[in-house]
Amino acid sequence: MEFGKLLEGVRREVPLVQCITNFVTVNDCANIILAVGGSPTMAHDIREVEEAVAGAKALVLNLGAIGDGEAMLLAGKRANELGIPVILDPVAVGVTSLRRETADRLLKNIRFAVIRGNASEIHALAWGQGSGSGVDVTAEEALRGENLKKGIQTARRLAESTGGVVVISGETDIVVDRERTAIFRNGGPVMARITGSGCMLSCLIGAFCGAFPDLPFESACGGVGAMGVCGDEAEKRRLEKATGNATFRTDLIDGVFNLTEEQLEKGVCYEIF
Amino acid sequence: MEFGKLLEGVRREVPLVQCITNFVTVNDCANIILAVGGSPTMAHDIREVEEAVAGAKALVLNLGAIGDGEAMLLAGKRANELGIPVILDPVAVGVTSLRRETADRLLKNIRFAVIRGNASEIHALAWGQGSGSGVDVTAEEALRGENLKKGIQTARRLAESTGGVVVISGETDIVVDRERTAIFRNGGPVMARITGSGCMLSCLIGAFCGAFPDLPFESACGGVGAMGVCGDEAEKRRLEKATGNATFRTDLIDGVFNLTEEQLEKGVCYEIF
Amino acid sequence: MEFGKLLEGVRREVPLVQCITNFVTVNDCANIILAVGGSPTMAHDIREVEEAVAGAKALVLNLGAIGDGEAMLLAGKRANELGIPVILDPVAVGVTSLRRETADRLLKNIRFAVIRGNASEIHALAWGQGSGSGVDVTAEEALRGENLKKGIQTARRLAESTGGVVVISGETDIVVDRERTAIFRNGGPVMARITGSGCMLSCLIGAFCGAFPDLPFESACGGVGAMGVCGDEAEKRRLEKATGNATFRTDLIDGVFNLTEEQLEKGVCYEIF
Repeated sequence: MEFGKLLEGVRREVPLVQCITNFVTVNDCANIILAVGGSPTMAHDIREVEEAVAGAKALVLNLGAIGDGEAMLLAGKRANELGIPVILDPVAVGVTSLRRETADRLLKNIRFAVIRGNASEIHALAWGQGSGSGVDVTAEEALRGENLKKGIQTARRLAESTGGVVVISGETDIVVDRERTAIFRNGGPVMARITGSGCMLSCLIGAFCGAFPDLPFESACGGVGAMGVCGDEAEKRRLEKATGNATFRTDLIDGVFNLTEEQLEKGVCYEIF
Repeated sequence: MEFGKLLEGVRREVPLVQCITNFVTVNDCANIILAVGGSPTMAHDIREVEEAVAGAKALVLNLGAIGDGEAMLLAGKRANELGIPVILDPVAVGVTSLRRETADRLLKNIRFAVIRGNASEIHALAWGQGSGSGVDVTAEEALRGENLKKGIQTARRLAESTGGVVVISGETDIVVDRERTAIFRNGGPVMARITGSGCMLSCLIGAFCGAFPDLPFESACGGVGAMGVCGDEAEKRRLEKATGNATFRTDLIDGVFNLTEEQLEKGVCYEIF
Repeated sequence: MEFGKLLEGVRREVPLVQCITNFVTVNDCANIILAVGGSPTMAHDIREVEEAVAGAKALVLNLGAIGDGEAMLLAGKRANELGIPVILDPVAVGVTSLRRETADRLLKNIRFAVIRGNASEIHALAWGQGSGSGVDVTAEEALRGENLKKGIQTARRLAESTGGVVVISGETDIVVDRERTAIFRNGGPVMARITGSGCMLSCLIGAFCGAFPDLPFESACGGVGAMGVCGDEAEKRRLEKATGNATFRTDLIDGVFNLTEEQLEKGVCYEIF
């Protein structure tokens, strides 16, 4: 896959990405969109989301903004009408019935270009059963060996039922559509020790989708690849400088800001089949 | 203009600045108020804003908090009654009708000491027409050459119709009241690659207004000058250390924290006429 | 007190800490919980807080989230039923009548394991009179000499009336229950120049309570000790590197991430009687 060209496209297009997202990580989401070369808008008021989305190139709906369920529904429907790709981040969907019901309504009414979650979240959407503590994937669900195969099955099931690209992120990242599967092995353990690494990844995918609305699989791979390579870089710096999760977050966003096409091409560790 | 004395005044008075502001950049806003020597309160609940503002020395209303439109109206009116300067930051006012209507109501009911926006936003308020993608000024609107003249005309028009000081911030910053015009040429391109540089500037202006409630023009210049000098410094560090927008944001706030009167006087690049 | 064992317990248990907290500092709160070894969830929607809290090991209620008063009430009652420790952070309780009333309702209906505030806030709860500018303790209330004695009396009064552990944080930190008193002298002046140092401390205490639900006094001491030692470390770095409050915040969270049991044991400066 031509990762460099994907990144170049984002920087050329400067896509306006609208995010209806949670208050915990909204600042990081805006800054990582700016870092990759997009332009963020976080408009989420139900009275203006339909008007706002008309100017956007991609829309990211983050279930952490659970109080904005109706606004997400309106914005997503309008984006579908306008042909603007919509990304779903089903934060903690397995944890409460409110989140399950809201996710169900969104999935019934909106066509998603990409759905990105951790293993628990995608499992809950694909199989209709909740699991997971908070928003973190449990150790048992880490995608290695047999679990990797199960993860791909789960992702494909959701890809088939929704028609969208599905991303499971974690130690290993999986990107699938109905036919293709890509596996990424970048990023390190500290990614799970900052809040918002998942939310930020969904926003990066949104930026790539905004530049390449007809290539959701490639866009998802672009976002996953960029996040992973910058995560590797941030982890290297953390170990060198003996810093912690706060500096890791700063280095991660800085890394996306400075990421070159060559660096992305060289650093991304993936296979596709 | 005696920038050093303005900064010294803020640090002596430690003004309590109340901000009704958006959730994207609220943390940065609070930290930059603390950095410059003020004390922030972000109380925005409609049931308490009138009581809260009575203890404040300045009030900043940020249209990004569009869900708090009624609270902004009540707080602003109360601040006017009490003689507390009010600053308006019309985030993305040109983008949706909800924002235009809310801004109209605020302008009709509240007397603003200072209004600060980017070129698109001030244009929309001054001439009543929307433009702009997201909250960013378009390249066409960069304030150079002929556009600088137009920018000053636009700002003056709004200053005359509202009686307040008007700031257009961007690559070049303009501060006008009915008679005076100041132009600032500090700050660099990465200022536009972090979220919240505009919101933070409005809060800095709020801190200066809190210390000098009778000098809104000087206060606006103080805020613009401080932000610009610290932006220059952060940009220099970014280039030296090859960091990105996340570290730039950290360095910017650190710079305000460590800004000395001498450094501000020496670094500010402005003309006034 | 065996601080090292307390820290080790948090890291072993990885307690899920639910926070209903304000939008100003919510990101820092989540990241510091991750840093210390816990797992955060910031679910605050009234429709899901009771369900969410059932999976948590501790619940932190922050009065800065004043719009979530009813959600806090429901979540706190449910946590009490389930035996999950609840921590109250009465942000700016003395400043508005809405906050006083909300705090009163919470105190009447919920049994708190720990209440942590600054001197003004604990004073307002203990004696029923408001004071304080914004959320900051006034200089007059700094806990030295005679004021330290008064602070302990105030904290004990609230500990006796509520049955909970009470923490007054500031230059000197006080932790009391009905019988014991601990005084901590770590942390430096810049702690008051970042937003959220109090909110983050309450969350750290929440993480310790989640690991040691039957030891609220020790848990409060663990949180106060960890924050203080990491504050000392961050202050040392700030002076060495001539940085400001933004880097101080990053270093503080990094410090918690890297804090070892030995470092905590050695660095904590306290007396207990």
